[in-house]
Formats: sequence, structure tokens, C-alpha cells
Amino acid sequence: MGARPRIAIDAMGGDDGVRVMIAGVALARHRHDGLHFNLYGDETRIKAALDSHPNLRAASEVFHTEEVVAATDKPSQALRKSKKSSMGLAIAAVKSGEAGAAVSAGNTGALMAMSKLALRTMPGIDRPALAALLPTLGDNDVVMLDLGANTECDAQNLIQFAVMGAAYARSALDLDRPRVRLLNIGTEELKGTDEIREAAAILRAATTLPMQFDGFTEGDKIGSGETDVIVTEGFAGNIALKTAEGTARFVTDLLKRAFTSSIRSKAGFLLSKPALHMLKVHLDPNNHNGAVFLGLNGVIVKSHGSADAKGVANAVNVAAKLLRQNITERITEDLANFRAHFPSESLAS
Amino acid sequence: MGARPRIAIDAMGGDDGVRVMIAGVALARHRHDGLHFNLYGDETRIKAALDSHPNLRAASEVFHTEEVVAATDKPSQALRKSKKSSMGLAIAAVKSGEAGAAVSAGNTGALMAMSKLALRTMPGIDRPALAALLPTLGDNDVVMLDLGANTECDAQNLIQFAVMGAAYARSALDLDRPRVRLLNIGTEELKGTDEIREAAAILRAATTLPMQFDGFTEGDKIGSGETDVIVTEGFAGNIALKTAEGTARFVTDLLKRAFTSSIRSKAGFLLSKPALHMLKVHLDPNNHNGAVFLGLNGVIVKSHGSADAKGVANAVNVAAKLLRQNITERITEDLANFRAHFPSESLAS
Repeated sequence: MGARPRIAIDAMGGDDGVRVMIAGVALARHRHDGLHFNLYGDETRIKAALDSHPNLRAASEVFHTEEVVAATDKPSQALRKSKKSSMGLAIAAVKSGEAGAAVSAGNTGALMAMSKLALRTMPGIDRPALAALLPTLGDNDVVMLDLGANTECDAQNLIQFAVMGAAYARSALDLDRPRVRLLNIGTEELKGTDEIREAAAILRAATTLPMQFDGFTEGDKIGSGETDVIVTEGFAGNIALKTAEGTARFVTDLLKRAFTSSIRSKAGFLLSKPALHMLKVHLDPNNHNGAVFLGLNGVIVKSHGSADAKGVANAVNVAAKLLRQNITERITEDLANFRAHFPSESLAS
Repeated sequence: MGARPRIAIDAMGGDDGVRVMIAGVALARHRHDGLHFNLYGDETRIKAALDSHPNLRAASEVFHTEEVVAATDKPSQALRKSKKSSMGLAIAAVKSGEAGAAVSAGNTGALMAMSKLALRTMPGIDRPALAALLPTLGDNDVVMLDLGANTECDAQNLIQFAVMGAAYARSALDLDRPRVRLLNIGTEELKGTDEIREAAAILRAATTLPMQFDGFTEGDKIGSGETDVIVTEGFAGNIALKTAEGTARFVTDLLKRAFTSSIRSKAGFLLSKPALHMLKVHLDPNNHNGAVFLGLNGVIVKSHGSADAKGVANAVNVAAKLLRQNITERITEDLANFRAHFPSESLAS
């Protein structure tokens, strides 16, 4: 795998197609001079899009394929496209070591299934998890995982997610000892499911890990800034992530209605506009685009289907950063450290 | 049980104590002339609070007790206070039929445990669920359940929640055929856990019920107004509810920061203030206070611990409405209807 500064791009994913993907990669390339890209997909459309981005054209190779994973493909259907589709080829480039990371804006379930099959999970990890950085009121973003890759998790899975999430926070947020909590329906020790309580008991004792385990947190504290890593199973994690997105949109919709409800409030809006721009930037999901499948032998980043060029650039930046920081090696070290201090039952592999 | 217009009030719950509870009940009494109240708790403090509310004093009886369920009591500890605590006495009044409903702002786990023990679940219901009305961008609120009473649910539980939630929506929202969906991590049929898919298959076939089952919905659609009843297990439901609360606060905090960031934006805020008041009203949790334990032989309403007098009044209004509309009988009828059309395995009791 290694840290070769080359990223494989599935150019065919995303709601707005090739043009947005290429524009996003070009934007990221401006920030990462040394990076090179392999672009997979329809050659004619990719080359047409590259015409507007000579800086990217000079730093990339195009690999033609006509096969595409559809948004409606079930994982089982998508797996049959592993060999020829733009998504499958991008993942294969990571497997062969040709690229250090891959970015796709395609079907999440397909990306997960294909990546798992091609790259396999890391030693010590039973299931990969989908992790993302979310905005907070504190000094840094918060890493949250799993966001939907696993609908049911046992204590071992949650512990592995905590170890991987902490490694991600150390890489992405430059923290020495990220503060980690398990998402729960209360903060008292007896709250929640058996799996969560068991995971908490083990993590509380795992003081040699480069993280600080602070127990449980609740849904209303996700963005409070008091935690750096929030660990949960994929069902609740996905529900929480989407509920947060939906609520933010709900409040801003109400805000728009308020501002347009009278001439007076319209004038107020115009006066406040520069300040409100800050709010918009903070809430724009494009600024937090780029979820990572942690726990695979290789870096796979999922860009949101509806991301714009800025969003795609963010996803590419996430991939570049994880590659530079050797996230895979970091997680491997942490898992080895964990196993050295705990009996084997604590962390099945 | 019946529909006697008398409500039992645990006057000792809530973060701000007796005075707020009594002020809230008095506020509700203004809207419900025929209602009478039993007030349980410290007689001296209740009577002192009643001095400011002669309208309520004239319509209520005070029952003295010194025992109180603490916020930190575990359900098992609280159960030992069933006979003498203000919470236990309020529930006992519903059991004896003296009151038609009870309202408490105390410890949720204790209220659930005590209510379940005293009132028992309705025939056909395995587990009660905590339901609340949440704001939407549509024409009416949405009923959501379970909000944390049950951390793990099977398909039968989810189906029973759907039946109860629909009955609640018909009562509280005056709808003939509420639109019901199961909360899931995707809308395709194959998404989610086995329990959710099984519940969906049975609900899809249950066309004789007074509800319209529309399949799955995701976290970002909770407040969209396209669904009247959202059904989920208590873990994800609690996480979603609190994530929505936290995100709404997060966005309004950012908004406050934006408005105070410059003199210009402060002026804009002053101009927009009347319009922004609408936003505040819409988001004020007090306007949606009053969660209901559905599935018990009696109406038990939980007021939020931090609710103000207006919030408490809302919780009392919820209790009054459910009482007036015979929610318990409605659910019983729906369950009988369901069983008449489905083999007994579909709805274990």
C-alpha cells in the first residue's frame, strides 16, 4: 500500500457527474502540488472536463471504462462490476499499490462491499466503519463513526471503532490524546444496551491507548465540542447524522421564512448578511465532505453524491491527509498496543 | 379508568420544583374549565404556590407526602417509593380510576417503571413506548415513538408502536388516516435490520388499519412534514430526538454569534427581531412539551424536567386531550381490528 502520492478517482459517481468530480479534484490539486491522480471513467467526458483544468491534466492519467455502478445497484449487483466499473478500478488501484487512496461519490453500499472484498479488513478489525468529521461549537471538529456501514455491532466492534476513530482524530485533528465517548441514551453507567456497557467497561480500563475515554455522551452533545471522537453502531450513527443534517436545514428554512416575512425583516437580513455568511459556511455540508472507511487495508473516501466541486475537493483533501499520515499504520500500531495490554478475548480478530 | 375530567399531578418533579409545576397547571386550567386536579407533594409548598393561582386552588385537592423520587434514583430504587412518593401516588390515582391521567416532570426511568408496574400494559401490547409530538415544516406536528423506553425492539414491538402511534396521531392531530413510516438508514426495501424489514412487510399488508403505511424514512426527513407518525426502537429514537434538539441549539448558537459579531449585524438583528421571534416560538421545546407513555392501561404524561410553566401547561393539555379522546380505547379497538385480519403470530400479546 504505502504512501505514494497518487489518488485514484472514480470520476463517474456523484449526482452531477464527471464535470463536478474533475472540478473538485482540480481544486484539491491546487492545495497539494505533489499529488498525482488516476481518473477512471468515460474517457471522452473526463478529457472534456480536463480541458478547463490544465493543472490537473498535467498531473493525471485517464483510464477509460464504460461500466458504471448505478445508484440503485444492490451491493450484490455492484460486486459483479468489481473488475470493470470506474469504482471497481479505482479500488483495484489501491489494492495493487498503484494509488495510495481512492475517492468515489458513488453508491455507498456498493463502495463498501467492493472495498471490503478487494482490500480486506486490517488484522484485528472485524468490520470496517464509516467515519466523518462533523462541525462543533468547540475548537475542532468531531470524528463520528460508524455512520451506517454496520447496522448491528457487538462490544468488540465498538471497541475497534473507538481505536480507529481515535487514530483518525490524531491524524485529521492533530490531537495527541483525543477524548472518546460512546453514544448512548444517557450518561449513567447502567444506561444503554449490553454491548455498549461492555465496550465502555473495557475502554475504561484501556488506559495505555493514545486516547482518553470519557464514558457516554448523548445525541444533544454531538456538536458541543466536549468530545473529539463519538463511537456508535451504524444504525444509530446514520440516524443521528441525518437527523442533524435535517434539523440544520429545518432551522435555516425557518430562518429564511422569518427573513422574508416582512420588508422590515428583509432589511434586517441585508444588514446582517455578511455575518450570516459565517453561519452558512459553518453549516455547508460541502465543508465537511469526505467520509472514510476505516479498518481496510487502504484508504477509501466516500464523497457525498450531492457534493459540489468544493465538497469533492474536501474529500480529496481528506484522502491526501490520511495518506500522508499513514492512517493504516497508525491503527495497526494502536491495535497491537491494545492487544499487548489486554487478554485476547477483549479484542477478537 | 374512564374519562373523568380529573388529572393527577406529581407536583415535586421538575428542575425548578413545585412553583413551576403549579404555575403550569394553573395555566392549563385556564384553557380547560371543566378539569379538576389532584396535586401530590409537599402540602406547605403546594399551598404556598396555589396562593398565586386562586383559579387552580378552587379546582384542586392537595395530597400531602414527603417522599420524592430523586432524579438520580435507579428504577429499582424508585419502585420502593411506589406507595408513598408524589410520583407513585399520582400513578396510583390513575390506577384506582380517581384520576383519568397523571403528569410528572420527574425521573423518566422511574416514571416508566412505576407506571408499568401499577397500570400494566394493555392487552396486545408487550411494551409501552414513549411518544411525543415534534415540529415539522408541514401542516401538522409529527408523532415520534419510541423515544427511549425500550433500547431493543423486535418486529412485534415496532408493529405495536405503529398501531399506537397512529391512534395517538388520530387523537392529537385530528387525522383520519395518519401516514406512518419506520425510521431506517435508507428507503429501499432491503435496508436496515431484520426486525425493521419484517415489521415493514407486515404493516404493508395491514391495509384495514386506520393508517397509511408508507415504508421507510430517514433521519433527515423527520421534520419534513411528509409523515405523521415515525416509528423506531427506543435507542435510535432517543438519539434522534436529542440530536435534533442539540442541532437546533447548535444552529441558533451560531446565529447568535453571527448577530453579535459586528455593530452592523446587531442592527440587522434588531430590525429582524419580530420575525425571528417566530423562529424562537417554533423551536421552543416548551411548545412541544409532554411525552406520553402509550400502551398502558391509563394515560401517563412526562413533562420535561427543564420545562417552564408554559411547558408544563402543554404537558397537561396533552393529558387532557388524550383523556377526552379516549386514547386507551382507541388503541384497544385498533389492536382488535388488526388481530381480526391477521394470524395470531403477526401480533403476539
